[in-house]
Amino acid sequence: MNEVVDQPTQPVTRAEPPTPIETDALIVGAGPVGLFQVFELGLLEIRAHVIDSLPVVGGQCVELYPDKPIYDIPAVPMCTGQELADNLMKQIEPFGATFHLGQEVQTVERLDDGRFFVRTSKNTEFITKTIFIAAGVGSFQPRTLKVPGIDRHHGRQLFYRVRDPELFRDKDIVICGGGDSALDWALNLVDVAQSVVLVHRRDDFRAAPASVAKMRALCDEMSMQCLIGQVNGFEDRGDALHRLKVTGGDGVTRTLELDHLLVFFGLSPQLGPIAQWGLGIERKQIGVNTEKFETNVPGIFAVGDINTYPGKKKLILSGFHEAALAAFGAAPYIFPDKKIHMQYTTTSTKLHKVLGVETPVFD
Amino acid sequence: MNEVVDQPTQPVTRAEPPTPIETDALIVGAGPVGLFQVFELGLLEIRAHVIDSLPVVGGQCVELYPDKPIYDIPAVPMCTGQELADNLMKQIEPFGATFHLGQEVQTVERLDDGRFFVRTSKNTEFITKTIFIAAGVGSFQPRTLKVPGIDRHHGRQLFYRVRDPELFRDKDIVICGGGDSALDWALNLVDVAQSVVLVHRRDDFRAAPASVAKMRALCDEMSMQCLIGQVNGFEDRGDALHRLKVTGGDGVTRTLELDHLLVFFGLSPQLGPIAQWGLGIERKQIGVNTEKFETNVPGIFAVGDINTYPGKKKLILSGFHEAALAAFGAAPYIFPDKKIHMQYTTTSTKLHKVLGVETPVFD
Repeated sequence: MNEVVDQPTQPVTRAEPPTPIETDALIVGAGPVGLFQVFELGLLEIRAHVIDSLPVVGGQCVELYPDKPIYDIPAVPMCTGQELADNLMKQIEPFGATFHLGQEVQTVERLDDGRFFVRTSKNTEFITKTIFIAAGVGSFQPRTLKVPGIDRHHGRQLFYRVRDPELFRDKDIVICGGGDSALDWALNLVDVAQSVVLVHRRDDFRAAPASVAKMRALCDEMSMQCLIGQVNGFEDRGDALHRLKVTGGDGVTRTLELDHLLVFFGLSPQLGPIAQWGLGIERKQIGVNTEKFETNVPGIFAVGDINTYPGKKKLILSGFHEAALAAFGAAPYIFPDKKIHMQYTTTSTKLHKVLGVETPVFD
Repeated sequence: MNEVVDQPTQPVTRAEPPTPIETDALIVGAGPVGLFQVFELGLLEIRAHVIDSLPVVGGQCVELYPDKPIYDIPAVPMCTGQELADNLMKQIEPFGATFHLGQEVQTVERLDDGRFFVRTSKNTEFITKTIFIAAGVGSFQPRTLKVPGIDRHHGRQLFYRVRDPELFRDKDIVICGGGDSALDWALNLVDVAQSVVLVHRRDDFRAAPASVAKMRALCDEMSMQCLIGQVNGFEDRGDALHRLKVTGGDGVTRTLELDHLLVFFGLSPQLGPIAQWGLGIERKQIGVNTEKFETNVPGIFAVGDINTYPGKKKLILSGFHEAALAAFGAAPYIFPDKKIHMQYTTTSTKLHKVLGVETPVFD
């Protein structure tokens, strides 16, 4: 069974185990390639922990195109991004990986004994023999509001995610965005805040039609407001954000007094702290060899879209191959005295045991 | 639509087109990797012809383990060898590859214009810009009867396959083997030949139970005979094979007079004529680079189990990756003036057209 230890979008019911967690393999990224890395390690009897900045597994496939068809997964004529992730989760179920979601790696340090100490943004700590970076195009970070100087209010009055809705009780709130997150929080906060104004650049919303209809009904009954336009300035009073300037499609700039500003412009990928790990990075890609897909740091491997080598194509199927060879490349760090033999899932009784399936009997 | 031009096990209803056939890409081997090579070339708008020594597509997967489950195809938790081949055939359907089955490549020569002239064992001829060797462990050849000197009767009295059953009319026939081919031909020839003796090393048959039951019934009614034992010698009369010596489990050697000997000991893979193409071969593997999976002969690529490079593992999923990079590596030979851009099946309108699917409309 795969175990999900922590999902930030839901109340945390299970605490992280005492840290540091000691493990043989730590996978950074729970996209398709990170998930398949669990499989390839599992066949070699190596258990893995998996970290992802998103609250769910599947990476880009699920974040950017959950419903779009993919045609180039070998032997799968068509599947959606979500189906791909679901099938991979089913495939890796026998290997009992532990998932640590909604957090990103912030610190990686080599210990004297050759292992790595790793700490995430949620202070989960690991000591691991090997690291597999399957971080795709990087971790997904909220797209920020591009208004010069407004950053200084981030974390006090400007937010890109909601941790505690009570912060907004009886406050004047402006929410920017036209997707599901913006609409969902507008609808949620209507009963909490003193006032809610939704600002979106055009009168056309990407959110679920039911949410849009509900928002329009609330506007009609004056429970909230919707303003078509873009934030292009602000005024402070003392240290505090006091007023937003919103220019509408009619060219008229209005000012809105507010206590808090919530911005939901979607997520965009960032390489993030990986850039500071001392790896050979060229043009946001991590250089690897094609024998083991190992980086210039022994014991750290990079697989999938984040790596580069001569001939590299950013194809999911290439990431699958890279994960297989990286697993074999990592085995000597984990089992220094064991000779690793190639075995086939079709015929190996040992692999059948590892997979939890019965060995078929043939004449 | 995939087009199968020639299947030797069935009457040839469609003649091979006039040769030499001019093509951009010729794939040698119709196993999973050869089939996926069609797909990767197809995405780049390169049409391929495919040759295989077997009468059906699917290669080893279908020949050796059609019903055995495979667990390590990424995002396919379990499938049989036959299902894998079927799914790949469905996936490549948009690309209209032409299959030339039941024949193997015997000649490869470089032409003055840089292209290759290729001739098969059925005298099908090609002129191609590129060749993709996806021949797995080699072509499947019948396992031969290991009796010193008996080779000299091969093709006149000793056969490993049946081309024309009429050859055996009113003759005394001995058939060796215990699998489906041996049993099927024994049952078929009972009504054609004067006598049929089936020789198998033990009283336990791999063939379908119904065939075994029918054979036993025919033996009981004296329409044919079954002898448990092994052929370990023969006698000629003049130039002709006259008698076989068969030693039974009881240690007694019997002699059998015969006109023809049919041997069905199954198929075993042989590298075959590929060894003579001037490629860099080490321990039956063809050396390639990992950028394009190209051999030491420019324009000839090798993918799947037949190739070797540092870190190589004989995994189907690695062959898929190799096929993708080989397609990109081959494109400049086929379109010397065209810049090849990476596109994704999820988002590329052009690829959707090539695949024959509609581009989904998203907001």
